[in-house]
Amino acid sequence: MFQSFDAPTRPEDGPPRLALLRTEIAAAGLDGFLVPRADVHQGEYVAAHDDRLAWLTGFTGSAGFCAVLDGIAGVFVDGRYRLQVRTQVDLDHFTPVAWPGTKLGDWLVAQLPEGGQIGFDPRLHTVEELRKLSARCGPAGIGLVPTANLIDRIWADQPAPPLGQIAAHPLELAGQSHEAKRATLAEALRDDDIAANVLTLPDSIAWLLNIRGSDIPRNPVPHAFAMLHGDGSVDLFCAAAKVSTELHRHLGTSVRLAEPEAFGPALQALTGRVRIDPSSAPVWVAEQLKLAEIVEGRDPCLLPKARKTAAEIAGMEAAHLRDGAAMCRFLAWLDAEAPKGGLTEIAVVRRLEQERRQDPMLRDISFDTIAGTGPHGAIVHYRVTEATDRAVTPGELLLIDSGAQYLDGTTDITRTVATGPVTDEQRACFTRVLKGMIALSQARWPKGLAGRDLDPLARIALWRAGQDYDHGTGHGVGAYLSVHEGPQRISRLGEVALDPGMVLSNEPGYYREGEFGIRIENLIHVVPAPALPGADDRPMLAFRTLTWVPIDRRLIEPSLLSADERTWLDIYHAAVRDRLSERVEGAAGLWLDAATAPL
Amino acid sequence: MFQSFDAPTRPEDGPPRLALLRTEIAAAGLDGFLVPRADVHQGEYVAAHDDRLAWLTGFTGSAGFCAVLDGIAGVFVDGRYRLQVRTQVDLDHFTPVAWPGTKLGDWLVAQLPEGGQIGFDPRLHTVEELRKLSARCGPAGIGLVPTANLIDRIWADQPAPPLGQIAAHPLELAGQSHEAKRATLAEALRDDDIAANVLTLPDSIAWLLNIRGSDIPRNPVPHAFAMLHGDGSVDLFCAAAKVSTELHRHLGTSVRLAEPEAFGPALQALTGRVRIDPSSAPVWVAEQLKLAEIVEGRDPCLLPKARKTAAEIAGMEAAHLRDGAAMCRFLAWLDAEAPKGGLTEIAVVRRLEQERRQDPMLRDISFDTIAGTGPHGAIVHYRVTEATDRAVTPGELLLIDSGAQYLDGTTDITRTVATGPVTDEQRACFTRVLKGMIALSQARWPKGLAGRDLDPLARIALWRAGQDYDHGTGHGVGAYLSVHEGPQRISRLGEVALDPGMVLSNEPGYYREGEFGIRIENLIHVVPAPALPGADDRPMLAFRTLTWVPIDRRLIEPSLLSADERTWLDIYHAAVRDRLSERVEGAAGLWLDAATAPL
Repeated sequence: MFQSFDAPTRPEDGPPRLALLRTEIAAAGLDGFLVPRADVHQGEYVAAHDDRLAWLTGFTGSAGFCAVLDGIAGVFVDGRYRLQVRTQVDLDHFTPVAWPGTKLGDWLVAQLPEGGQIGFDPRLHTVEELRKLSARCGPAGIGLVPTANLIDRIWADQPAPPLGQIAAHPLELAGQSHEAKRATLAEALRDDDIAANVLTLPDSIAWLLNIRGSDIPRNPVPHAFAMLHGDGSVDLFCAAAKVSTELHRHLGTSVRLAEPEAFGPALQALTGRVRIDPSSAPVWVAEQLKLAEIVEGRDPCLLPKARKTAAEIAGMEAAHLRDGAAMCRFLAWLDAEAPKGGLTEIAVVRRLEQERRQDPMLRDISFDTIAGTGPHGAIVHYRVTEATDRAVTPGELLLIDSGAQYLDGTTDITRTVATGPVTDEQRACFTRVLKGMIALSQARWPKGLAGRDLDPLARIALWRAGQDYDHGTGHGVGAYLSVHEGPQRISRLGEVALDPGMVLSNEPGYYREGEFGIRIENLIHVVPAPALPGADDRPMLAFRTLTWVPIDRRLIEPSLLSADERTWLDIYHAAVRDRLSERVEGAAGLWLDAATAPL
Repeated sequence: MFQSFDAPTRPEDGPPRLALLRTEIAAAGLDGFLVPRADVHQGEYVAAHDDRLAWLTGFTGSAGFCAVLDGIAGVFVDGRYRLQVRTQVDLDHFTPVAWPGTKLGDWLVAQLPEGGQIGFDPRLHTVEELRKLSARCGPAGIGLVPTANLIDRIWADQPAPPLGQIAAHPLELAGQSHEAKRATLAEALRDDDIAANVLTLPDSIAWLLNIRGSDIPRNPVPHAFAMLHGDGSVDLFCAAAKVSTELHRHLGTSVRLAEPEAFGPALQALTGRVRIDPSSAPVWVAEQLKLAEIVEGRDPCLLPKARKTAAEIAGMEAAHLRDGAAMCRFLAWLDAEAPKGGLTEIAVVRRLEQERRQDPMLRDISFDTIAGTGPHGAIVHYRVTEATDRAVTPGELLLIDSGAQYLDGTTDITRTVATGPVTDEQRACFTRVLKGMIALSQARWPKGLAGRDLDPLARIALWRAGQDYDHGTGHGVGAYLSVHEGPQRISRLGEVALDPGMVLSNEPGYYREGEFGIRIENLIHVVPAPALPGADDRPMLAFRTLTWVPIDRRLIEPSLLSADERTWLDIYHAAVRDRLSERVEGAAGLWLDAATAPL
């Protein structure tokens, strides 16, 4: 099993570690120290070596930070983690803070007297983050002091940094050689008169060099740094132990390898105009660029990585068909077992992973499966542990959000299923969510619009019933890379124009606290809209669907669908059956036939 | 008639005036001079005294400007006026420039050598406008020189500035006394430590003091300036000739009157923190504030003016019922006459204004009626003149966009009507536009969203057919004030949150160049959404309709409407009949019955 159900931390470990840290803070002549969840690469997952926030506080959420002062240790978490943090930290020693409502700068200014000095590890905070914090703290007389990482000084059994092997990502799957990618980006650098671009995001480096790593769970990326030069050559900084002879051959001579320790000196030696991305580059990187003129700009890999090649889309399509077959076998089993009672959330998660593991192309799950039955379905980021495991009681709605990392693509799918009799209210809510999901699937729009401009289409059916959901409608998805990838997104924050090749999730939901949760999620990708008679002479875009798995017909109230929506659903189900029937056999095949019958 | 059909200018008048202006430019030691459409108040309409751009060039559009240099005179106009400008100016002497694609700063830098000096009248350009222009011109060595208005020196028979009477706007219609408005805004000024706020927008001043003016066509506002002080008192600068004894009484003692000539010295005498709105305040105002600390911020009247009082909404509702009756009489006449042939666009405009003039509350039309038959309907801002007047040929679609200024409210309505047999394609396009208009009418959304977030709802039916329209979906509307009012709007540019009380137009369209134009427009206002069973516990908003006039059922293809949309239309038409049947008699009454029958 990739997924674990253990409680990874214990609240009682926090206080003695906090006491040790305070001793270090005092010894360093400071009044406090910042402990972020982030590592130097600012990704969603961190290696055990970098899980300092969980080690210190017990809190294991994917975002947050702790500000340790003499009299108080504030654990800043967002709305997703308000409940979880209270169960994971010792509340006598740690104080949860509702972030981003309360901003760190305001909190520090309120807690500290003028002249207070806060230490921070400049490798773990971005240029932009420090800039904002300084703008608030500076005028209030609070100092921000770069220092060595004080957690690393007291964490006796801190795991070593990972040394996961790096593999070449085949050209057939990438669709473009790393030579061609480097040449294109280098030309843009020269146009902007940039001597070198520093890269600190592992998935940017993985995309640029057509490599995949194994340093952290769920994301097949290597911990590494890189510099792309105006001549198209790259300096890649990562441990030699991760690099095979074969990979050396793949990278060729214009990608020069060096140990991570050489990154600092190499930055110090850079001259001319050097670009960094202030939203992801650590403060430490900017500090090293002593001879260069720093130019701030977006990581140049982000947009081309988001616009998938035809080969990447083909890989995603193939991965989704195999993943769809695994999902069907799983759902067929679930439909047979759930009504009997006796299943638990963990059993559901295990079974789903087993079905996926039959695929030799599987490398990991793409995130820990969310399986929430009844009221647990309303906890948007619920992750079951032995302590929270709940029996799937027949009649409850069961929400399963899961995905996988295959060599040829990344998947992410949510289905909400009935486990017994369904109420009219549940059916009405499910159907509204489905209407939103269909509206996006069918959308066509003038080129140039951003995800924000499409987001309302997924919500209007809920809005008209006075309902809504408090998360975005869709996130970008990588091609055998991060399951959460920017800059494309469908949400109120999605200001980047959608372009052909971008892969996104389409996942409206509805949550009734203490009762049930509903989410339906397919992955979709952006294509030029097919020609239509009577259409204007203007470029338009549309979505094409990647995910082929039945949507629970027992949860649909047909009278709430328009004729057009029913047609979409019936065509979708017919396509699911066509594509998967040869891949799903026996009882699961019979289940597929029934599950994809016209409404 | 309010509306005139004369061609207001002649191209041949331009060249001799241009020659005179160039002599003045040379005499002033300058290399050029800017002639904007705007007056000192930056409104959509200008008095004859201020129509310098039309006098010089012949171009009469509602936006644009001319940059006169030695060898070239560029007339900058946006997409609406590309064709019109070519018919109105002498193309041997004036060069149309596609603005805003070509920016003035870039154009000046390209045309002038380093050291070039461009004169401008600092009363006619805003602080923001000059700042942007300087940022481009300054580094390129082009100087911007405030100077007297060179047009006023050469315009021998320039009309005098208007002296339209100012009337008190009754408290029953305003819903809030000017004393209360001034007190509320003054409190906000004190909170922000602002000593005084300079007001230069006539509709802000009209709203604040509950007055209406008659200086310019279409907008019942007075040309005036004002200063709101932290104690709630106001200095109002306008010609004494406009002010009756009765108005003196209405304004009371804490509104001090002075001649416009006193505005400059009064600005010069202001001290402390003084706020101006850089997007509307003339450069000249900032120049006069020699002793004050200038604080930039939005005109504080804009948002409270946009959020109408219950009394203003009641007035708007009453005005719309009377306007709806006039529209019905007009449409009944049109339906009887148009199929016979022989009507022209001008005859249509005349008849509509006649119907409206029967109302003793009518004060003006709210803009020149757009009546475009056949291909003229596809010209979004078409305004018929004797020269362009076209026969309404039976079978053509006829688009009529019009509105009125009544004492109790402002209207704006578009209906597109059949004049004979209709093609399936026209019917399909009309029905898609109607679906968008219904989608907005039915919308409900979480409080906090802006017009941009609703705009796609009005377009998705067209988008799905590969179609769209190149204008916003809705503009703000004043209550017996400007028919175009900000900051609320429904468009890609609408970033201001919609609030209860805001009045907007809902006017999707579709235009096929050279063939036909379709637009359907109702006014709507924002209300707290009515309670619903099963709704979330979150504040939501909705629209309520102000406009009650039948939508041409002959242009609707029922099979393209959902059951829900048909229900909306039938309920709308039943409500039109209920509300208007007592106001529309005889043949028009019979027409109303037929026009509002269920689909």
